[in-house]
Amino acid sequence: MNISKFVAPEIIFGLDAIGQVGESALRLGAKKIFVVTDYGVKNHSWVNKVLQYLDQAGLECQVWYDITSNPKDTEVARGAEEYLASECDAIVAVGGGSPIDAAKAMAIIATNGGQIQDYEGINKITRPLPPMLMVPSTAGSGSEVSQFAIIVDKQRKKKIAIISRSLVPDIAIIDPQLLQTKDAQLTAATGVDALSHAIESYVSLAANQLTDVRAIEAIRLIAENLRESVACRTNMQAKSAMAMASLQAGLAFSNAILGATHAMTHQVDGLLDLHHGETNAILLPHVMEFNLISCADKYRQVAIAMGENVTGLNKQDAAQRAISAVRRLARDIGIDYGLSAMGFREEYIPELSKNALHDACIITNPRDANADDLARIFYKAL
Amino acid sequence: MNISKFVAPEIIFGLDAIGQVGESALRLGAKKIFVVTDYGVKNHSWVNKVLQYLDQAGLECQVWYDITSNPKDTEVARGAEEYLASECDAIVAVGGGSPIDAAKAMAIIATNGGQIQDYEGINKITRPLPPMLMVPSTAGSGSEVSQFAIIVDKQRKKKIAIISRSLVPDIAIIDPQLLQTKDAQLTAATGVDALSHAIESYVSLAANQLTDVRAIEAIRLIAENLRESVACRTNMQAKSAMAMASLQAGLAFSNAILGATHAMTHQVDGLLDLHHGETNAILLPHVMEFNLISCADKYRQVAIAMGENVTGLNKQDAAQRAISAVRRLARDIGIDYGLSAMGFREEYIPELSKNALHDACIITNPRDANADDLARIFYKAL
Ligand SMILES: [Fe+2]
Ligand SMILES: [Fe+2]
Repeated sequence: MNISKFVAPEIIFGLDAIGQVGESALRLGAKKIFVVTDYGVKNHSWVNKVLQYLDQAGLECQVWYDITSNPKDTEVARGAEEYLASECDAIVAVGGGSPIDAAKAMAIIATNGGQIQDYEGINKITRPLPPMLMVPSTAGSGSEVSQFAIIVDKQRKKKIAIISRSLVPDIAIIDPQLLQTKDAQLTAATGVDALSHAIESYVSLAANQLTDVRAIEAIRLIAENLRESVACRTNMQAKSAMAMASLQAGLAFSNAILGATHAMTHQVDGLLDLHHGETNAILLPHVMEFNLISCADKYRQVAIAMGENVTGLNKQDAAQRAISAVRRLARDIGIDYGLSAMGFREEYIPELSKNALHDACIITNPRDANADDLARIFYKAL
Repeated sequence: MNISKFVAPEIIFGLDAIGQVGESALRLGAKKIFVVTDYGVKNHSWVNKVLQYLDQAGLECQVWYDITSNPKDTEVARGAEEYLASECDAIVAVGGGSPIDAAKAMAIIATNGGQIQDYEGINKITRPLPPMLMVPSTAGSGSEVSQFAIIVDKQRKKKIAIISRSLVPDIAIIDPQLLQTKDAQLTAATGVDALSHAIESYVSLAANQLTDVRAIEAIRLIAENLRESVACRTNMQAKSAMAMASLQAGLAFSNAILGATHAMTHQVDGLLDLHHGETNAILLPHVMEFNLISCADKYRQVAIAMGENVTGLNKQDAAQRAISAVRRLARDIGIDYGLSAMGFREEYIPELSKNALHDACIITNPRDANADDLARIFYKAL
């Protein structure tokens, strides 16, 4: 038996949970808060609400919103400088996975120095980070509870994965109301991102009994609620279920790591600045087909969690049901195209396949994969 | 929807996990460690191993082992004094639930002053506690991950429950090898304690989706492995499963709290100095019968997790299967007697029933209960 490790932040989940931001930030022991958010969210009342709660708690704030989707190393460097100049002593991020990941990366640079590339890979951070509190506005990235930060290396045009226990925030406040601000397309993309976190962590080589129950529950919730959540912006029952699913998937993959899908999407997203969730939706079923011979029993459980009837089927056929269920779900929520439709060109494949082998997520993929294997998966997904 | 909160320590689980004690204690930022253990464990090589690992990590240690099963307020007061005199700056506890609870209570007194009775109930601790790392040697109490500490008030002859976020240790190191040192009777008692944590937290009024998956997984693991674990001291597969079950049940009840069984056993154990697990095993099925009308759907799920076939049964009959499965399990592992056999006398009932209404665990019991209700349950369990 291997040794399993599990870390998680303090979690506050529920409708109106955002009302606890002030009291929670106070518990971080900070005097002045660096609030990281993105343009999209800044215009929303949620950011203003957060600022108001922090103010009511007697906390000074400085807001930083100079970040984009798929946050870049250059943005992180500027944010870290600003953090230091501001004399803040804690970080609160409000928004999707991008501002949360950017906030983590700024925290690294501000306290450990150098540039973000120095921390690529596993456990490269040595000095403690400032206290962090995260308020996600999408149901997908799981970054509010994870040991991960994903940042784009602008020069190399690829995403780098930074994995470290010190990236787990201190507090995550998840309020499903914030999801109402997102349109159908973003809801679909982030939802499939959460699904790929759950499935990849469930079959990961580092999966264990602590992560498996969270992964399976996330898969069940997504199969049952993502369609409805995409269909209707105000369906709070579906939004709450998706927020819970994203949270549970985040807890699973933070501790069990991911697989080939993420190793590959990190390359594609970095090159083309696409939405990570869409890229996942396209690549996931192809990676699942490649992985099937390594984890058919677990795919059988995935099929059952997705509501498929596998009674009487042999192991392989039951496992296939998981893949067809993922395909149908992606199609139902509007992701019925391949990578080509997103501007991805065949000529990228050789280099991206090679680069994907250096992503930390490939290490825990359940089936050994070389560059040729990954290239074949890219071709199928065109 | 209510707001759910979830807190947990960093968890390190697995065979030989104990080897990580030194490196982990270093991460607590401490220079000198106060090691709390009990007589029973002190004579075992595990305590010496822990001391050796701490020494190898360059950490000074002072050992404190003046505590008994069902730790007393007076022992806690002496330990807290000793902690302060020792100039230690972190606490490591090695042993069953008793030394772990005692260590938590000493941490409270040493930093918050007063006596342990001042902290009875929920969230009474105001000042931060020293960093704590727990190494359980039984699979049952879950105290290594929980917000609970249970201490006997010697004068009032009752257990008091202290519940506070600051009682969650920083790190829990769970190594199933340590369970091999326990005999069949202790394995049985601690195992049923874990089962009662899982079942009570699953039907608790504070249960939520984050705690439910942990509770159900614990119930499944216990139903499948407790018998084998009791039967054979060296069955490492069963020991590992029980360690995992106790851990998951601990995470569930720490965040969802418990119910009437624990409110009642806290009174009995305090009065008669019995093993908490045995008292639980006797009272749990009777409390389940009382609670059934409030949570039959959930008991149906408990029955399924325990391997019962409920196909075709109506809700009530399916729920009853959970109760009969608990009874059979308790009987199979040798707990086939009532409270009378343990020295409990009918005349205690009126006062203990009244006292149980003041235990924090009664608040989350799914069915409203008054003193008469609890008295009737005590009578049935005689
Ligand atoms: Fe992702
Ligand atoms: Fe207990």
